[in-house]
Amino acid sequence: MCWRDLPGSRKGNADVAPPAFSLGELAQRFRLELRGAADRTVSGVATLAKAEAHQLGFLANPRYRRELARTRAGVLVLHPDELPHWAGDALLARDPYAAFARIAALFEASEPLACGVHPSAVIAADAQVDPQAAIGPQVTIGARSRVLRGARIGPGCVIGEDCVVGEDCELVARVCLVKGVRLGARVRIHPGAVLGADGFGLAMHEGRWIKVPQLGGVVVGEDCEIGANTTIDRGALEDTVLEEDVRLDNQIQIGHNAVIGAHTAMAGCVAVAGSARIGRNCLIGGGAGITGHIEITDRVIVQAKSFVTRSITEPGTYGSAVPAREARAWTRTLARLNRLGEKTPR
Amino acid sequence: MCWRDLPGSRKGNADVAPPAFSLGELAQRFRLELRGAADRTVSGVATLAKAEAHQLGFLANPRYRRELARTRAGVLVLHPDELPHWAGDALLARDPYAAFARIAALFEASEPLACGVHPSAVIAADAQVDPQAAIGPQVTIGARSRVLRGARIGPGCVIGEDCVVGEDCELVARVCLVKGVRLGARVRIHPGAVLGADGFGLAMHEGRWIKVPQLGGVVVGEDCEIGANTTIDRGALEDTVLEEDVRLDNQIQIGHNAVIGAHTAMAGCVAVAGSARIGRNCLIGGGAGITGHIEITDRVIVQAKSFVTRSITEPGTYGSAVPAREARAWTRTLARLNRLGEKTPR
Amino acid sequence: MCWRDLPGSRKGNADVAPPAFSLGELAQRFRLELRGAADRTVSGVATLAKAEAHQLGFLANPRYRRELARTRAGVLVLHPDELPHWAGDALLARDPYAAFARIAALFEASEPLACGVHPSAVIAADAQVDPQAAIGPQVTIGARSRVLRGARIGPGCVIGEDCVVGEDCELVARVCLVKGVRLGARVRIHPGAVLGADGFGLAMHEGRWIKVPQLGGVVVGEDCEIGANTTIDRGALEDTVLEEDVRLDNQIQIGHNAVIGAHTAMAGCVAVAGSARIGRNCLIGGGAGITGHIEITDRVIVQAKSFVTRSITEPGTYGSAVPAREARAWTRTLARLNRLGEKTPR
Repeated sequence: MCWRDLPGSRKGNADVAPPAFSLGELAQRFRLELRGAADRTVSGVATLAKAEAHQLGFLANPRYRRELARTRAGVLVLHPDELPHWAGDALLARDPYAAFARIAALFEASEPLACGVHPSAVIAADAQVDPQAAIGPQVTIGARSRVLRGARIGPGCVIGEDCVVGEDCELVARVCLVKGVRLGARVRIHPGAVLGADGFGLAMHEGRWIKVPQLGGVVVGEDCEIGANTTIDRGALEDTVLEEDVRLDNQIQIGHNAVIGAHTAMAGCVAVAGSARIGRNCLIGGGAGITGHIEITDRVIVQAKSFVTRSITEPGTYGSAVPAREARAWTRTLARLNRLGEKTPR
Repeated sequence: MCWRDLPGSRKGNADVAPPAFSLGELAQRFRLELRGAADRTVSGVATLAKAEAHQLGFLANPRYRRELARTRAGVLVLHPDELPHWAGDALLARDPYAAFARIAALFEASEPLACGVHPSAVIAADAQVDPQAAIGPQVTIGARSRVLRGARIGPGCVIGEDCVVGEDCELVARVCLVKGVRLGARVRIHPGAVLGADGFGLAMHEGRWIKVPQLGGVVVGEDCEIGANTTIDRGALEDTVLEEDVRLDNQIQIGHNAVIGAHTAMAGCVAVAGSARIGRNCLIGGGAGITGHIEITDRVIVQAKSFVTRSITEPGTYGSAVPAREARAWTRTLARLNRLGEKTPR
Repeated sequence: MCWRDLPGSRKGNADVAPPAFSLGELAQRFRLELRGAADRTVSGVATLAKAEAHQLGFLANPRYRRELARTRAGVLVLHPDELPHWAGDALLARDPYAAFARIAALFEASEPLACGVHPSAVIAADAQVDPQAAIGPQVTIGARSRVLRGARIGPGCVIGEDCVVGEDCELVARVCLVKGVRLGARVRIHPGAVLGADGFGLAMHEGRWIKVPQLGGVVVGEDCEIGANTTIDRGALEDTVLEEDVRLDNQIQIGHNAVIGAHTAMAGCVAVAGSARIGRNCLIGGGAGITGHIEITDRVIVQAKSFVTRSITEPGTYGSAVPAREARAWTRTLARLNRLGEKTPR
């Protein structure tokens, strides 16, 4: 997402030649052992099935080993144990997937240089935008908010009052930081995400709902990534918190005052209710739900589509999802299951 | 969310001094009994754990009673029955949470005054915007739509054709009313919500889908609140309806022609399929699903992550969610469950 | 959604008179048999319950046959078998719902004519917009993207770099195509949808997450429809693909490198994990989940709220959802279910 070529923008200095790297250069840069020609160059990355001779592929999962016989990749990143199965050039890594990820980043399309504020952006008089930050078209930035050095705010983002966008953050496009949201360095947020909307606080009074004011903020640690259309509510009185390096996929809902520990990752469509505390290094599968006001310790894995209703004090794997079966078999299962609930089960 | 300080806006008259209130004033205003110094002032609200001497805290749930011994709050809102456990100043309420909610609202940041139409907004010639309404930057308002007195339309909102935004409504930011959406007074909608998109109507014809035109609207009653990234589709022929004081959390999906009764509240990520009718004063837990074309009576509670597949005619509590267990135990459970579905169960 | 009346737009030529059609005209146009007065006209469509004498209704489901006695509709679309139950004018169709859908489309509000580029739109110098396309207010179009003839891009849409919007596509409003998204002809996308955001690719390295670059695109076939706030991620190395005539409801999440076969339809809130392959002509019920890296064959029906964890090789219906029951009965069921998981079940 770049507005360097948009009318009214200062132009960045885009690299036009596609990048190419020698194997020797890659081996040295990422401290990998090389088998083969150090001066061979690669100019792209691809899957085993689609790679061409000028591209680099990888084998991270032995399950796909049989594809080694068919691939036309010029060079592979793989584990030393796989060498007997591959006769071509190779970069050897204990963790081939991580090594591949770092190499592939070299081939991402060149990003726009910082290019100031697009003339269509609307910025409050007392907001502060670092001269080294980039503010795209149709962005709004509210009172007392600050955008720090190297941050890039893509088209259509709305930043409300009292927010901080840390150094080198990227808000890709149409992100909304409603109020009191503070992002650490290098946070990346995808389109449609909403941080800092009011939490869902209600009190029933004389037959009608009263809104409980939501006065807290949202604090997001360094290196977090937040997926498209994910929502993270502001706290009621204190803050909602993501510690550093938390990774959230798309369409996740984080309720007010939740706290998510460092390095925890959640797949799409997870829902975390208010005031839940999730530990560090947890993995939460897609579509899982976490009840409010409970605590999950570090290094817990929650399986996809499961529902955590009580605190978890022991690291380990937890689940409650039911795999789909052929419908008639499932209907029979349900019928018997329901009988289990009768007061005098048959 | 406020654009009073944005270039091109008329300035509102913001209160800059933080508000403070005496206990006597609060007691009188909210008809609470006071124990302690009527002239003591508080200038903020906080949790029991974080409150300082100039702040007001509350105890709504006896479970947290032990925190009374440690809190430094200057005054507490609590139930008369809790008085023996608290020696400090107190405001007594039969429903401390509702009383606290109303007091806390006094400390919300001062809202922008109505300030006309931001010059970057694009408004159809035959749309009507009340002079006492506020239209923020980069808003679009389509043909024949009306924005009534006191309504505030935040940055980046899109209002299509034939919509009505009622008095004192607040569309926080980036809200989309697609077409034929009528909001009653005081409706509050959070960023990313989409009301009035086409319902999901399809007919299969000669091997391809035909779109069934969606010609109805969306009607939202007074005092409703709609969460971030929630979607409410327009009806196929008649309207989709939320009655007054319905409260929807984030990422809820309401299908075409659904009707949601007054005072019903839904937690995040609920999905209501088309033409479902939900009664008044219902509570729908997070992540629950409601099948289409069924009817749920008044005062029904649906537990989180449950799936309602048939009409419910009796008030009460209903559920089908399965709490997560340690994964090996759950795998054994599943294996035995599946055997229940065999034609000749073991 | 139309900006023809917005300041700065060239005006389209709107039909102001509401459309009316004679029964003879409808019968001929849609090849239906007519019973009744060929010169009778209808000027709208409605439900059986609400239709007036100048309106056309339909009966698609025999379940609603008893409403025939009460309806005031001037003419009905129905199956020949229903004729004995209806004495009024009728258009006879083997598939009354599909016939009704096509007739109802005639009564949709007249759409805006193509009207060029709104002056508030920000379009990259090397982007191409066909003169017969319509670009609404506050749209951004990035480098090297193309918008083809007849396409309509509604207010607030963001189109990033290297995208193609095919002929006669409609992006209703606030749609985001992040990067490398190619839409076939006649694709319709509802507000808040995000296509082409980074897939969720992570590798753990020395205790921290590394982002795996997402370099693929999204390809959407002709005649697809994509609901409000739905997200479809770009592929990691290859593309994420929707074949032609795929129909997605609101708030669906499609992970990177998923492939969805032609004519498959999914109801709201479905989640499809990365690299899943779903066949042609499948129906996926609301809230269902599909695990990653599995394959589902053609003509599979997945029931709502079910969770598919393994490949499905046989056409048919599959499910695992549990219908809600009265809570005490469900609690008893759960207690007995959990005992099933004990090593020595009671």
